[in-house]
Amino acid sequence: MGSDAGPAAILAGAAVARRRHPKIRFLLHGDEAALTPLLAKHKTLADCSEICHAPDVVRMDEKPSQALRRGRNSSMWHAIDSVAKGEAAVAVSAGNTGALMAFSMFRLGMIDGISRPAIAAIWPTMRGQSVVLDLGANAGSDAEQLVDFAVMGEAFARAIFGLDRPTVGLLNIGEEEVKGVESVKKAAHILRQSKLPIEFHGFVEGDDIGAGVVDVVVTDGFTGNVALKTAEGTAKLVAHFLRQALTNSLFGRIGALLASGALRALRAKMDPRSSNGGVFLGVNGVVVKSHGGTDAHGFASAIDIAIDMARSDMLARISADRAAIAIKDEPAPAQNPTGPTPGQPEAAVS
Amino acid sequence: MGSDAGPAAILAGAAVARRRHPKIRFLLHGDEAALTPLLAKHKTLADCSEICHAPDVVRMDEKPSQALRRGRNSSMWHAIDSVAKGEAAVAVSAGNTGALMAFSMFRLGMIDGISRPAIAAIWPTMRGQSVVLDLGANAGSDAEQLVDFAVMGEAFARAIFGLDRPTVGLLNIGEEEVKGVESVKKAAHILRQSKLPIEFHGFVEGDDIGAGVVDVVVTDGFTGNVALKTAEGTAKLVAHFLRQALTNSLFGRIGALLASGALRALRAKMDPRSSNGGVFLGVNGVVVKSHGGTDAHGFASAIDIAIDMARSDMLARISADRAAIAIKDEPAPAQNPTGPTPGQPEAAVS
Repeated sequence: MGSDAGPAAILAGAAVARRRHPKIRFLLHGDEAALTPLLAKHKTLADCSEICHAPDVVRMDEKPSQALRRGRNSSMWHAIDSVAKGEAAVAVSAGNTGALMAFSMFRLGMIDGISRPAIAAIWPTMRGQSVVLDLGANAGSDAEQLVDFAVMGEAFARAIFGLDRPTVGLLNIGEEEVKGVESVKKAAHILRQSKLPIEFHGFVEGDDIGAGVVDVVVTDGFTGNVALKTAEGTAKLVAHFLRQALTNSLFGRIGALLASGALRALRAKMDPRSSNGGVFLGVNGVVVKSHGGTDAHGFASAIDIAIDMARSDMLARISADRAAIAIKDEPAPAQNPTGPTPGQPEAAVS
Repeated sequence: MGSDAGPAAILAGAAVARRRHPKIRFLLHGDEAALTPLLAKHKTLADCSEICHAPDVVRMDEKPSQALRRGRNSSMWHAIDSVAKGEAAVAVSAGNTGALMAFSMFRLGMIDGISRPAIAAIWPTMRGQSVVLDLGANAGSDAEQLVDFAVMGEAFARAIFGLDRPTVGLLNIGEEEVKGVESVKKAAHILRQSKLPIEFHGFVEGDDIGAGVVDVVVTDGFTGNVALKTAEGTAKLVAHFLRQALTNSLFGRIGALLASGALRALRAKMDPRSSNGGVFLGVNGVVVKSHGGTDAHGFASAIDIAIDMARSDMLARISADRAAIAIKDEPAPAQNPTGPTPGQPEAAVS
């Protein structure tokens, strides 16, 4: 556990998750001497947890290549390793994103038919929630990769939201066929021809994300990362303007006081911790990255998402749906589950 | 005047601008029979305006290529033509963006040394306002074009904000040197070596836009368009959540009533009309695109921006600064103003 959050917050988060999922069991990867006294404070969690000593941590500023070279004794590597060995159904970490992705790709491998992984997140919308990916696993993506992302996104939306036929849109700069970059236009063509169990909506624009026009928004990692961070920056800016407006006059201050319950509810709704977790899609196992600076509540949300994924047939689904596109005129191959068997979830935490 | 806004809103906007800029004169391009009775309602505006009859309009759904073929009798073409002939210092239109850009490039030509135009806009931030470009004139951009955008953005920021050395940042998905797409990294390298009169800040991320970390944010047209629309969608989403929160309880409703002045001030601050106007940079003349659905207030803001640009040496500056990068080891060429001479502004309105 080498994250900014520190092991105390991580364990508090696991304790929250334990209350929500009474049958969960944890493998806690980290420094045994540090974890033992912390775990003693959480009686119920201790009863369902095993500390797995790891002498080392991956630092937050370490490059993925460095981490791959010298991180084999780290808590993060051990957590991914326990998923690879089938000891845990999922891994959740608040550590270094690049290293976690490198370890996942190296140790778990990729799902059959998927060439590049993606990071997906749940985005609050006017209609509820949507999935957006890729949020930065790749710096740019070609048409085939965008199709991969669409397949992974629909499988994830199905696992998390319980949807039968998620609606999928490709992020573009206009809804017309003629606009946009070549990769996006080509991906649209492939998806339109495919017989995926989705409603392919075509192109969506930036403002359609927050409006909740589709369940799954597909984009390359560069654009997705910029969109996510721009949205975060805008939410902060509006909150800043709201605070300014409400403290500028006496009536504003009294009104804010009276409406403080409502404003608290708004803060809770906008709270990034309640949909905390960047999900790694495409790797052959369930790995969820929690924000580095999160608290117990945020870490518990990340565990929730991981459990939903583990209980679904998401990994097998991605492989089968991707194959159904590649071999269009032949019947799709039988679903052959990859990765840990769903059932009683076991979470590796690093 | 073939925009969604309709000539009545446009003329009302011109009348507002006339009150702010008593020396302004207008060439109003459009259907004379429609404009004459409308103009009669604005006495002061009528005194400084000339109606230039144009029998045709460019429709909002027309493709730029179509408009170029059959739009030579349109009010939009005539407005750009009057800038090209030096009859007007600036053109402002709420019409079809693609056609307006095509006409501007075709009739005004490009500034020396600039290969592609960009659309820039003013973005509200925690520190005040920043310039963001390109917002969709191009679907993607290489390193050289990003450098063009940086030069155009700093010249625009100087003209609008009166800054001596604007800070400039390149939008990327991490602040480290190693991250991001090749074109962005290469552009950073060129800008770092350049002797432009700017503070080159390096990379910025999506959330830095709203935070106002730099005066000018440079990105390709695809990413910029997605960022702009995602920000608009997020602002709408937060407003939606705020309304929901404030109407959910009695105290919330009373509080909102008391704070209604403050909330109105917030709405005014977030109002896209007050920074209305996509500025066309790179073409050899001042052309500002107002939002199609805007009102008098919004159209007047677009005219304000155009006037600030016309009064500055922006066009000459772009050419000189771009040349200073191309010929690094030789002295920059003497500034040779292109386009209409600044001074008493004359606005062509279509």
